[in-house]
Amino acid sequence: MTSEAQRRIEEQLTAEVVASFARTPDPRLKELMESLVRHLHSFIREVRLTEAEWTRAIEFLTAAGNITDDKRQEFILLSDVLGASMQTIAVNNEAYRDATEATVFGPFFVEDSPMVGNGGDIAAGAAGTPCWVSGTVRDTDGNPIAGARIEAWEADEDGFYDVQYTDGRVSGRGHLFSEDDGSYAFWGVTPTPYPIPHDGPVGAMLDAADRSPMRAAHLHFMVTAPGFRTLVTHIFVDGDPQLEIGDSVFGVKSSLVKQFVSQPPGTPTPNDRALGDKPWTSARFDIVLAPS
Amino acid sequence: MTSEAQRRIEEQLTAEVVASFARTPDPRLKELMESLVRHLHSFIREVRLTEAEWTRAIEFLTAAGNITDDKRQEFILLSDVLGASMQTIAVNNEAYRDATEATVFGPFFVEDSPMVGNGGDIAAGAAGTPCWVSGTVRDTDGNPIAGARIEAWEADEDGFYDVQYTDGRVSGRGHLFSEDDGSYAFWGVTPTPYPIPHDGPVGAMLDAADRSPMRAAHLHFMVTAPGFRTLVTHIFVDGDPQLEIGDSVFGVKSSLVKQFVSQPPGTPTPNDRALGDKPWTSARFDIVLAPS
Ligand SMILES: [Fe+2]
Ligand SMILES: [Fe+2]
Repeated sequence: MTSEAQRRIEEQLTAEVVASFARTPDPRLKELMESLVRHLHSFIREVRLTEAEWTRAIEFLTAAGNITDDKRQEFILLSDVLGASMQTIAVNNEAYRDATEATVFGPFFVEDSPMVGNGGDIAAGAAGTPCWVSGTVRDTDGNPIAGARIEAWEADEDGFYDVQYTDGRVSGRGHLFSEDDGSYAFWGVTPTPYPIPHDGPVGAMLDAADRSPMRAAHLHFMVTAPGFRTLVTHIFVDGDPQLEIGDSVFGVKSSLVKQFVSQPPGTPTPNDRALGDKPWTSARFDIVLAPS
Repeated sequence: MTSEAQRRIEEQLTAEVVASFARTPDPRLKELMESLVRHLHSFIREVRLTEAEWTRAIEFLTAAGNITDDKRQEFILLSDVLGASMQTIAVNNEAYRDATEATVFGPFFVEDSPMVGNGGDIAAGAAGTPCWVSGTVRDTDGNPIAGARIEAWEADEDGFYDVQYTDGRVSGRGHLFSEDDGSYAFWGVTPTPYPIPHDGPVGAMLDAADRSPMRAAHLHFMVTAPGFRTLVTHIFVDGDPQLEIGDSVFGVKSSLVKQFVSQPPGTPTPNDRALGDKPWTSARFDIVLAPS
């Protein structure tokens, strides 16, 4: 039981720290810091954080800093598994009519992906079951959007993005543009679940919480067109068991779960791609952009 | 204006993240993570954190990780300037009768300091005006505590602790034990204000907030005795202008501000230490320990 006097001491300390930001010239920075201090102090007071736990928190952040480099971003992973990334996306992408929902960006996007064109193949040798993805890009009144830039990227069937290999390969990523009628289509590979990097402090935290590091199978999209809000999203695979177990970064929205229809070996392909005796899948993703 | 539907989406995301910790075997870790998620999400939602601000936060943590090493701890500095360290201390050191108040530990304590004994000199060559510190160690009933271990450490008059020099010197730190009547005394140097390390991201943040990195002048104490709560505290210098400007880590408590009485050159010293024509100061600090 915390006494009234003790409560006053703790509240007064918070007020003193908030007041220390009173002269911050940038009003937005002032607002951010004041709110951060209030919530941070509320957390410490609510859980009655022990000095040993405070030390553990410092050690955790230090370890996250140590493992972070040009190729590994433990602080983004931390934000992701605490749902902070997804909450930021929720706050910044409020629902607008039937516009397609956004989800996490993730750490594996790369600028200047290959231009594959409509009907092209982003897999570029990435291992996996070929997948034909097609759909349209429209505005919220149903009008086609021509020339929208569609970036797509994904892991191979072993769960790795090209940048996780050390041979400099570029595979599983590319871009194309929607046609005059808003249509688009490309070949990729059928998404499979993969773990986020979990050999660092974030992985240890997931482990201590008996949480899986696995992400539900997904294919990343970023769609940009002048006059429209940039859409960063994924499509997920209907029937993926990981959808039930839970996505480690909370990226799943039911509107983004799509049928990936199995096509037996020998089924003719949409653009006469020769797949021999390989099976393939097809998925449809109709994209609706909100105005910017 | 956030719509009701949008609010529900955001609340549901928070609930989903909290639920992901449901199977955490350690009940305390579960409590900590659930509360952390709730407060982190409340912060993001309250300030409507933008995606650019989220990116800035990731960059800040990354820079803090980069500058942190064996000698520099930017995450402790961050906790200190956000008052999180002091709030943790407040929560763990609730007022007990007239027991001496605690304050921040700081990053400059070193194990195995020299034993100087009563009347000895912890300065060991540290530059500054000599200062005689004396007092008693008692329990909250006023009974003397014999054999309490008193650790004291401080910066020199240039504002540096010994560990901030690169020559391996040990100065401005030492320990002694209280006598049978609870009394103790030692020589040190009169404390002067100094800045926390401010050439990293935390310093840039203080700068952006128009906040001073200066700490009010202080002398660190850690007092341990079997059966008593360990006391980590400072004494501050009455009349130090930095007390008005504000202490960068919020460590000041009025009960810890002490008179450092100026003694003109030639004033006889308590233990006949020969100081020639140097002035010195004297300060009294009576310590009261709470039971553990
Ligand atoms: Fe991904
Ligand atoms: Fe200090």
